[in-house]
Amino acid sequence: MIEVVEAYIDAFARGDAAAATALFADDATVEDPVGSPVRRGVDAIGEFYAASMATGARLQLTGPVRTAAKHAAFSFDVRLTYEGKSLRIEVIDTFRFNDAGQIVEMRAFFGPTNMHPG
Amino acid sequence: MIEVVEAYIDAFARGDAAAATALFADDATVEDPVGSPVRRGVDAIGEFYAASMATGARLQLTGPVRTAAKHAAFSFDVRLTYEGKSLRIEVIDTFRFNDAGQIVEMRAFFGPTNMHPG
Repeated sequence: MIEVVEAYIDAFARGDAAAATALFADDATVEDPVGSPVRRGVDAIGEFYAASMATGARLQLTGPVRTAAKHAAFSFDVRLTYEGKSLRIEVIDTFRFNDAGQIVEMRAFFGPTNMHPG
Repeated sequence: MIEVVEAYIDAFARGDAAAATALFADDATVEDPVGSPVRRGVDAIGEFYAASMATGARLQLTGPVRTAAKHAAFSFDVRLTYEGKSLRIEVIDTFRFNDAGQIVEMRAFFGPTNMHPG
């Protein structure tokens, strides 16, 4: 599970939306941020990561990956450019995995208080 | 939601299980760690926190609280004494809240790779 998290971060570093999407099961869900409409299935997930990476988003872990049963949770900073401005967003993601090691559920926790210039 | 997280951490600092339990709705659930049996209702939750705090557990945030819709997520270190040994455990908790600002669901993400001497 830690290797999948690292592969996810590496995919952002390369701007490789297909590599990020390949980590998910066919019927996986992505809720980013939590409370927004859930994206379901690899087509919707692929579109989401292509749009995310178009902002130049780069992820940097800010602590060790936590793993519990079939779950991982990790805190990180996202740096991206939005409407010409550099932003840093503090995020915690949770992943749930299936027995094949694919992500079946991704949820991202962040809000306005977690967004900063820079 | 950030104030509730801070009150939760303060309750551990004082060893006050009742204060931690008072942050939860009557029918709330606690899954700590994720993958273990879910504790449901304030009686079970009160017993859980009394036992947790009997280890001398103290919580220290290791990053900003993330808030999203009716959810909070936060990373922290727990320091406690277990079978005479000092342990540090790296944890990420997620809280879901009701409209009254009470915690209705708590989940704790950590596993063996997140436990260290000290």
